[in-house]
Amino acid sequence: PFCDRTKNPNVRMSLPAVCFVWQTAMIILFGVFIRYNEESDTHWVEYRKEKNISDIENDFYFRYPSFQDVHVMIFVGFGFLMTFLKRYSFGAVGFNFLIAAFGLQWALLMQGWFHSLDYTDGKIKIGVESLINADFCVAGCLIAYGAVLGKVSPVQLMVLTLFGITLFAVEEYIILDLIHARDAGGSMVIHTFGGYYGLSISWMLYRPCLDQSSRLQGSVYHSDLFAMIGTLFLWMFWPSFNSAITDHGDGQHRAAINTYLALAATVLTTVAISSLFQKHGKLDMVHIQNSTLAGGVAVGTAAEFMLMPYGSLIVGFCCGIVSTLGYIYLTPFMEKYMKIQDTCGIHNLHAMPGVIGGIVGAITAAAASESVYGTEGLINTFDFEGAYKNMVPTKQGGHQAAGLCVAICFGVGGGILVGFILRLPIWGDVADDNCFDDEPYWEVRDELLTKICKCLFCLLMFHGWRPAILTPKHTMLPPPLLVRNV
Amino acid sequence: PFCDRTKNPNVRMSLPAVCFVWQTAMIILFGVFIRYNEESDTHWVEYRKEKNISDIENDFYFRYPSFQDVHVMIFVGFGFLMTFLKRYSFGAVGFNFLIAAFGLQWALLMQGWFHSLDYTDGKIKIGVESLINADFCVAGCLIAYGAVLGKVSPVQLMVLTLFGITLFAVEEYIILDLIHARDAGGSMVIHTFGGYYGLSISWMLYRPCLDQSSRLQGSVYHSDLFAMIGTLFLWMFWPSFNSAITDHGDGQHRAAINTYLALAATVLTTVAISSLFQKHGKLDMVHIQNSTLAGGVAVGTAAEFMLMPYGSLIVGFCCGIVSTLGYIYLTPFMEKYMKIQDTCGIHNLHAMPGVIGGIVGAITAAAASESVYGTEGLINTFDFEGAYKNMVPTKQGGHQAAGLCVAICFGVGGGILVGFILRLPIWGDVADDNCFDDEPYWEVRDELLTKICKCLFCLLMFHGWRPAILTPKHTMLPPPLLVRNV
Amino acid sequence: PFCDRTKNPNVRMSLPAVCFVWQTAMIILFGVFIRYNEESDTHWVEYRKEKNISDIENDFYFRYPSFQDVHVMIFVGFGFLMTFLKRYSFGAVGFNFLIAAFGLQWALLMQGWFHSLDYTDGKIKIGVESLINADFCVAGCLIAYGAVLGKVSPVQLMVLTLFGITLFAVEEYIILDLIHARDAGGSMVIHTFGGYYGLSISWMLYRPCLDQSSRLQGSVYHSDLFAMIGTLFLWMFWPSFNSAITDHGDGQHRAAINTYLALAATVLTTVAISSLFQKHGKLDMVHIQNSTLAGGVAVGTAAEFMLMPYGSLIVGFCCGIVSTLGYIYLTPFMEKYMKIQDTCGIHNLHAMPGVIGGIVGAITAAAASESVYGTEGLINTFDFEGAYKNMVPTKQGGHQAAGLCVAICFGVGGGILVGFILRLPIWGDVADDNCFDDEPYWEVRDELLTKICKCLFCLLMFHGWRPAILTPKHTMLPPPLLVRNV
Repeated sequence: PFCDRTKNPNVRMSLPAVCFVWQTAMIILFGVFIRYNEESDTHWVEYRKEKNISDIENDFYFRYPSFQDVHVMIFVGFGFLMTFLKRYSFGAVGFNFLIAAFGLQWALLMQGWFHSLDYTDGKIKIGVESLINADFCVAGCLIAYGAVLGKVSPVQLMVLTLFGITLFAVEEYIILDLIHARDAGGSMVIHTFGGYYGLSISWMLYRPCLDQSSRLQGSVYHSDLFAMIGTLFLWMFWPSFNSAITDHGDGQHRAAINTYLALAATVLTTVAISSLFQKHGKLDMVHIQNSTLAGGVAVGTAAEFMLMPYGSLIVGFCCGIVSTLGYIYLTPFMEKYMKIQDTCGIHNLHAMPGVIGGIVGAITAAAASESVYGTEGLINTFDFEGAYKNMVPTKQGGHQAAGLCVAICFGVGGGILVGFILRLPIWGDVADDNCFDDEPYWEVRDELLTKICKCLFCLLMFHGWRPAILTPKHTMLPPPLLVRNV
Repeated sequence: PFCDRTKNPNVRMSLPAVCFVWQTAMIILFGVFIRYNEESDTHWVEYRKEKNISDIENDFYFRYPSFQDVHVMIFVGFGFLMTFLKRYSFGAVGFNFLIAAFGLQWALLMQGWFHSLDYTDGKIKIGVESLINADFCVAGCLIAYGAVLGKVSPVQLMVLTLFGITLFAVEEYIILDLIHARDAGGSMVIHTFGGYYGLSISWMLYRPCLDQSSRLQGSVYHSDLFAMIGTLFLWMFWPSFNSAITDHGDGQHRAAINTYLALAATVLTTVAISSLFQKHGKLDMVHIQNSTLAGGVAVGTAAEFMLMPYGSLIVGFCCGIVSTLGYIYLTPFMEKYMKIQDTCGIHNLHAMPGVIGGIVGAITAAAASESVYGTEGLINTFDFEGAYKNMVPTKQGGHQAAGLCVAICFGVGGGILVGFILRLPIWGDVADDNCFDDEPYWEVRDELLTKICKCLFCLLMFHGWRPAILTPKHTMLPPPLLVRNV
Repeated sequence: PFCDRTKNPNVRMSLPAVCFVWQTAMIILFGVFIRYNEESDTHWVEYRKEKNISDIENDFYFRYPSFQDVHVMIFVGFGFLMTFLKRYSFGAVGFNFLIAAFGLQWALLMQGWFHSLDYTDGKIKIGVESLINADFCVAGCLIAYGAVLGKVSPVQLMVLTLFGITLFAVEEYIILDLIHARDAGGSMVIHTFGGYYGLSISWMLYRPCLDQSSRLQGSVYHSDLFAMIGTLFLWMFWPSFNSAITDHGDGQHRAAINTYLALAATVLTTVAISSLFQKHGKLDMVHIQNSTLAGGVAVGTAAEFMLMPYGSLIVGFCCGIVSTLGYIYLTPFMEKYMKIQDTCGIHNLHAMPGVIGGIVGAITAAAASESVYGTEGLINTFDFEGAYKNMVPTKQGGHQAAGLCVAICFGVGGGILVGFILRLPIWGDVADDNCFDDEPYWEVRDELLTKICKCLFCLLMFHGWRPAILTPKHTMLPPPLLVRNV
């Protein structure tokens, strides 16, 4: 293959330009469009007296703890999960930080125009639920980042985010409002869309000579531990993610329980498969870091339904298996035969479990009945009100399935479109042999000791020594380890 | 002593088998027994209208923030606290993850049968409080893991957890329901039981030749920092732990304040003792990581009582001293003379402070009076209702003491029993010289640099150089550091 | 300059003495003065029946989630933010832990005497809001610690904290109670005061020969990642910080939204400036770790006002620029020409943004109107009640400005005073060439590998080899890297 080595990753003009211009645009658009809603405005005191409710019934107290958990997932969860690469941890956590901070502003606008525009004054009214939704919207783009981790410039990531948020808002509007599908934890809207969006972009940006930087495409001991910080905060707070915007009362309560259980089951099957498919029964950190989360993705849509505790366990059980097998078989297959280089394996963590989640949601919705939900409960849970007063569960199941298809289409289509744009030679991305390296975009301060070791090694190399130990796999260290081939 | 070197740590069949079979059993048992309670069921909407309460009075909003904090303590707190070993961080955080995820499912069943079985339909009804209790139950087993850290296989840990949860549920039922002792933060039920359970197992699994892996039984700079993540999340969220299942209103409020204060005092006395007992007044990270938490353990039982702010400080003050002295004198003594190898020093962090907590609880309960608590307050706090309508504080003090004894007995007895089972030669544990090493159970990717250094070192060793510097303690590096003994 | 090398950093007597005596004093003072308030006392059950309110309206449920977030910021946020130094991470996170644990106790007393003394019985009544305020108070001292990080002994830090808390409580009383300024997130009270307090102390403790330890005054790859844990937890939970003690209902809601937005904008401008001012457009971790937080500081005072979403973005936009430029130009300038050695750059992260926050607060307050706030809203937000019934917004603006001046004066004046005390030669601080090193105060366990490398290096040095590579800046490693100058 033809391997390009002449790229210039200097983003000194483009990155500041994008940041300044877009942030300025945000300020102007916020000035024109965005205001506080009635629960975060100073008029609340009059509003609540009129409605005769207590301060504690402000939506803030229903949702703020969940919001903070979701916020942690977005910045620490996604950020640290991607630090597993030995020399791309700054990029992982730093660019995640950058695009999430931009994305949430743009999401407040995009989602606001579609969902919370007040037609009396033409303003978007925001409150804590808007912040949660903005974080959700950002999650879609962070998932996509996982597929192209280490292979794109920060400017490309900003573009990926700009379009990703836009597509997300449209897709979400179609699925939730037009199709009237329910998707509490975003299995379809967030994970399926984000997953296929990222994979399509990665396919468009295929790098034939990526093996030139294969020395950096792996983890070291401590980078795996940093990644576990991300994994655990995602895992622990996923119940908050799936319950953050569900109905007050039993809705949030049930969504948290279902997610908690699904995730627990996933851990056990992930460990089982990881151990079973290794020659010596050893566990692979890649699986533990990623596949243990698949249950949370897959239970997203159905989390607020009467999935039943054992239903949640079954979903988690299956996803741990599917996701881990995906890492073992599917990811290498996709790279070799489909030209999709998926750095973090988002296909196994988000795309597949997201689709499973959509299907589980459709089935659970179709199977809903008044005997299980109660008359009021059924209406409440599926929002069979207003224009949908005559909706029935079986039909709702069909709508759920339609929603899933829309998510996939938007993901794939949007990804190809954005991939085209990102292939333009103006974004400052690196050459193939500089991938997975923080050096091009970050000031990296190497430890003196590291330098010394490199020195010593080079010196010995120069004098004709070759490390015998580096070739074969080993655990013990019998001398002689260096052979002098004079 | 006779040192066995022939163990086979291959868990390729046993670990997947245990995970699959037990997880399948969980699904079946959940299917038969577990349902949502009235606050997480879709019928809530009818229930709350009937009771004329607001959505915000769903127990979810009283307890969910505390639940999430407890969840963080279980997975990040316990998990990272144990990463201090230089080459057992994967095992620490990974196996902690595995057994906690299994344990909480089993705990929901076991505690459900004892505490929340609905006799009208034979189902266990779960809600957010059940999730908190399941996490608490798991904590007992994670404490026990601390004692045997690095010396057991994941299969052994699963067995330890299965029996640990079972014993916990029975012991808890006896202490809280039959004896009617109060134990908000679980000083007795969780920490005393978990501590002695782990120590007894460690005693049963005594390894006479453990010094063969002494090169790995210590920390390095960055592993100590990872451990501090665990320490701090435990320390910060302990007020949530002790207040998570106390009474709504003042109960939760007071428990949080008491715990906050006790922990603050512990930090100062831990630092004082750590510095005082070192030749140069230097602080030891082991003490800072562990003993600073002892105050939270010891204030657990009495946290919901009118312990008074200064009372909390006194408890914290004493525990910092006792726990740190335990690390300095007691742990080496126990290893040398009592054949108890306590990797994390759980005797100093959980067992001793737990017993202190039980005693403090008994005294505080016995000293309670209507003049301090108020008539209703006294009934409320100690639950002097129903069958215990005629209970008086002094008698309650006796019941508290009885509860403590039960916890110790169950811990020691259960540990010895489970220790016998774990000594069977079928669990895939490692030989003595492979302890405290991730290599047997994890795919470990060594950094190239590390390999190079090992090479260079071996090469020089092979040529007769011996590192003079490795023998004496040093801080400066005067040459020559290597001496050639030809 | 005259460089002292004869200091004795042995704190074996002084540190334990200070910890024991002060903690004992705390117990006595708490015994005399501190009791539970009506919401954390067992009499709550009667109180709430009398007031006819539900348990959920206990202040605990309004503030506890925010409290826990603030608690995380204090211990993990500040603690890990300062771990960026390659060999001072134990001191960063450990001493932060120590002084925060002491400081919060002393703060409960000091703030209690000024703010919540119950004159009927002479007791201070504490509840969850007191805990938050104590954490806030501690934050001021932790900010100051940032300026002197690595250059002072733990005993000096305890003294710095004792006086810092005392000054804080007085200053806060003057600003909030006497001047009647509003300062929800403490831009003035916490950040301006803490910043100038620390800078003044650093100026008093100027070390002319600090370049002797310049080899340690920098970060390594993994220490920068640990610092990002601190950064992100501060960044994510800052909305909780600024909304923790604002009014129930819309006050907390609005403060969280404003802070969320300001912080998002700051990230983009920080990245822009960091990239723009580097030769190759590379980002500097120092800026990402610190300047991204400046927006949260600067929006502190005005967070509860009707700053409007775009107003928050503007504040964040400006602070990202100002703070990053401060790191590039101002910090080196201050060290060279003003004898202020500011290890963490608190001038750029706290002092300057704090002053900006005070000014923004004054302007926003002066511009407040009934048309925007509503009649009741205006009274509510600015607390124009009681003695301030006739206050008007323009006048309030003046009071805000006065408050800012008081904060600066207390910071500078207090810092100089305390600096004098800390210059006494009795506190066990280290010599200039031992700064930024954990060795003097901590048992540091070096990894065997590290020792080996040092050995090898010394050996080669001894034999006349000099590392050619260490002098010039490099990224690639061409041999020969060592030159033998025989």
